[in-house]
Amino acid sequence: MYTLRELAEKIGAELVGEGSCQISSIATLSNAKSGSITFLSNRQFLDQLTTTKASAVIVSHADKTKLPGDGLVVEDPYVGYAKVATLLHPFVNQLTGIHPSAVVHEEAHVDPSAWIGPCTVVGRGTSIGANCYVGPGCVVGDEVIIGPDAQLVANVTIFHQTHIGARAIFHPGVVAGSDGFGLAFDQGKWLKIPQVGRLVIGDDVEIGANCAIDRGAIEDTVIEDGVKLDNLVHVAHNVHIGAHTVLAGQIGIAGSAKIGKYCAMGGQVGINGHIEITDHVTITARTMVVHSITEPGTYSSGITADTNVRWRKNMARFKQLDELAKTVKRLQKQFENQFPDK
Amino acid sequence: MYTLRELAEKIGAELVGEGSCQISSIATLSNAKSGSITFLSNRQFLDQLTTTKASAVIVSHADKTKLPGDGLVVEDPYVGYAKVATLLHPFVNQLTGIHPSAVVHEEAHVDPSAWIGPCTVVGRGTSIGANCYVGPGCVVGDEVIIGPDAQLVANVTIFHQTHIGARAIFHPGVVAGSDGFGLAFDQGKWLKIPQVGRLVIGDDVEIGANCAIDRGAIEDTVIEDGVKLDNLVHVAHNVHIGAHTVLAGQIGIAGSAKIGKYCAMGGQVGINGHIEITDHVTITARTMVVHSITEPGTYSSGITADTNVRWRKNMARFKQLDELAKTVKRLQKQFENQFPDK
Amino acid sequence: MYTLRELAEKIGAELVGEGSCQISSIATLSNAKSGSITFLSNRQFLDQLTTTKASAVIVSHADKTKLPGDGLVVEDPYVGYAKVATLLHPFVNQLTGIHPSAVVHEEAHVDPSAWIGPCTVVGRGTSIGANCYVGPGCVVGDEVIIGPDAQLVANVTIFHQTHIGARAIFHPGVVAGSDGFGLAFDQGKWLKIPQVGRLVIGDDVEIGANCAIDRGAIEDTVIEDGVKLDNLVHVAHNVHIGAHTVLAGQIGIAGSAKIGKYCAMGGQVGINGHIEITDHVTITARTMVVHSITEPGTYSSGITADTNVRWRKNMARFKQLDELAKTVKRLQKQFENQFPDK
Repeated sequence: MYTLRELAEKIGAELVGEGSCQISSIATLSNAKSGSITFLSNRQFLDQLTTTKASAVIVSHADKTKLPGDGLVVEDPYVGYAKVATLLHPFVNQLTGIHPSAVVHEEAHVDPSAWIGPCTVVGRGTSIGANCYVGPGCVVGDEVIIGPDAQLVANVTIFHQTHIGARAIFHPGVVAGSDGFGLAFDQGKWLKIPQVGRLVIGDDVEIGANCAIDRGAIEDTVIEDGVKLDNLVHVAHNVHIGAHTVLAGQIGIAGSAKIGKYCAMGGQVGINGHIEITDHVTITARTMVVHSITEPGTYSSGITADTNVRWRKNMARFKQLDELAKTVKRLQKQFENQFPDK
Repeated sequence: MYTLRELAEKIGAELVGEGSCQISSIATLSNAKSGSITFLSNRQFLDQLTTTKASAVIVSHADKTKLPGDGLVVEDPYVGYAKVATLLHPFVNQLTGIHPSAVVHEEAHVDPSAWIGPCTVVGRGTSIGANCYVGPGCVVGDEVIIGPDAQLVANVTIFHQTHIGARAIFHPGVVAGSDGFGLAFDQGKWLKIPQVGRLVIGDDVEIGANCAIDRGAIEDTVIEDGVKLDNLVHVAHNVHIGAHTVLAGQIGIAGSAKIGKYCAMGGQVGINGHIEITDHVTITARTMVVHSITEPGTYSSGITADTNVRWRKNMARFKQLDELAKTVKRLQKQFENQFPDK
Repeated sequence: MYTLRELAEKIGAELVGEGSCQISSIATLSNAKSGSITFLSNRQFLDQLTTTKASAVIVSHADKTKLPGDGLVVEDPYVGYAKVATLLHPFVNQLTGIHPSAVVHEEAHVDPSAWIGPCTVVGRGTSIGANCYVGPGCVVGDEVIIGPDAQLVANVTIFHQTHIGARAIFHPGVVAGSDGFGLAFDQGKWLKIPQVGRLVIGDDVEIGANCAIDRGAIEDTVIEDGVKLDNLVHVAHNVHIGAHTVLAGQIGIAGSAKIGKYCAMGGQVGINGHIEITDHVTITARTMVVHSITEPGTYSSGITADTNVRWRKNMARFKQLDELAKTVKRLQKQFENQFPDK
């Protein structure tokens, strides 16, 4: 719990009101109660400013005059909310040591300030950094390096030789560093190609539940600093994801694709293998990218819903689109022939 | 094992035949043997009625006269099959207590009639209801409430403060109540926003293998009674899914979407964030929904397969569709100018 | 470590050079060092042949004359690479027995040459074959049969009665044999239909991380010999996948679909239920297949990315495509009426 004044100081906000009220929780404008702080980020909720029961509201400079009572004024209220929420709900790992049911190899190094949870397995030659929280049911293979302050929440699997930077957050079900899909076709059978590259992950990376990230085939799969992955994302072998790129749920990145820095992709996007996407590219949900993108900007290809009746008709026409285009071209030519001056 | 007469009584079916035959298994029309019961739901298999080796067949009133021998007559044979199969293959948990390898916090409450399997971890303040079956390798966090008769099959992860109703079935790999994808961009970096809402799940909910369901960001993620999710479904934070809605495999629901009651969606559907879909909406496979749907009915947007040769041509034309439409408009105008009376 | 001569003999390649150099690792053309072997499979890298620091290069007969030094000449250099990589990086399980933290039912049969890892649970009546490696955190249900030389890497869940052939590789997070999505709608509620078929998997099958493969509803789900699945693939109940078919990441196969032998599908493909796809069918990424395919060949339906500006225009036109086609037809008719001889 903080006073509003303390919060203002900690996040560098301008304080409106005398600042002595106690703030104990974060809330939305509509469900706020006394003791909670809320924020106005989307201006379609502007009218809720007057009805909210929050003790304080985080607003932008532009909306400062609309504050009905106490508040914090910041450049970006959503960022202000993120900072205040982090102060009010810090992740605190108060556990240290190794749970007796965990199986930690005698040649693993676990920092004394780290926690290894129940039913978790840590392999030979692996190093778990300071203040790490390795939750229950995790499997960390051999020769893995995990930097300080990382959280493997629960039931996470990290393969041998994977490197993970500081402050990583891996949600349950994440599989990191597993074999990629490397096959060669020989005399009627698919031969498995040993996957001998590593998975190397930078600092401040968050990986959502049930994501699967492959190790490299020969060279490494690389995820740079600050990358954030939502749930159920598939990252194939040899992929390189640039710093501070964010990928929404169920995205698939095929092998050897190279994604730039500060990219953002919506849910269910698919990225072809062996292509390159430059920095600062936004790709909207469900887009399939098959060629390299060399210019920053926004790209799309998803088809959006219609009534089934209309969709059936349009889909049938799509299947004959080339014919239609040819018909139009022919008509155009015939018309020009008849009326050459048009 | 039941006699046919017993089955008729238990599911409220009309008995055809004298009913003393013993039924020990369910089968399809084509693989049935003596002692098994089958059903005719899809009338394209009508001719198999005469060749099936089943001891009895479940049919509709309309097909009663086509029964070659013993049978059960019901309104919906598929429902009849479901009921008979449940009688013949009941889920029976005969285990109670806590496996010695499980790690149950001393401040957790496990009903004496429940079972906590091997290598499973149960957190502080958590309550596991009567007759629950918590299989091997599960991780149940702190302050979770699980209602009676629930099954967490194996390797399920339930986060802190999640509430789960009666008779839930969670298949392996399910992650329920993990942090959503909440980020704010500040000075070149993505800040994580603490996810402080809960996940609240009603009664009779079944969640398929490897689904990932996020907790709320501030308010709760809610899944109402009777909802059924197939495998690998992604449900983001603050989503609300209405009662008795069914979602097929690999569907993704983005944050704060609100799905109505009695909706049905095919595989790989994507639902945009912050939209609302009313009750009784059917969405066919692979559809992407980006705007709210306010009218019950069926909606679609998937493009279906063609030969690669035709698809390449049509796809190329799609990329110039706006040009084509403009050309047509121009032609139309030119034609009208030439023949103003047409 | 092998000499180049030894590698040539073992993979049946033609040796170029005197063959005494020691080869200890596999590398790409660009990152190779002394002691490593590389390969030229994609001829766009032909010029790297002269600059690579590899001790030897695997090339095709056609490129033999371009070898700057020692090498191996084979029909398909990618296959050669696969074979050499397997020699240099064999999977060797040197562990046998049962880790003390594993929970193996007294009525399970574990071959003495197999390994059951820490925190792994094996059920009643289950048989684990010779030289199997069952890694940490796995759950293997009752009456499962696993053939010799299989690897369940870690955190894999195998349900009761599943049969798995020889040399299987199951990556972490795989759920195999879980209940399918079987529901019958009865009086406003969805009834669960017990899933009483099995999952039967042939020899040499590899399943990627976090895949979910359902057991059969009544009859079995079948995956034949040599099938390879990438990560996060969904295989519904009663599906049949023919031998040596390969499925890329995030593919979904709906219930009772039958896929032929030697098929190949790109990422995020969706296959409708109850359809049949013949042998030797290639389906490109993101394609949705709703009807049976009876002719071998390549099929597609994905729409590929465009700039958001162009995509918005084309998408809007797509929604009116049926109208556009009718307009063109009308124009065509009007034109023909005016110029009947054209």
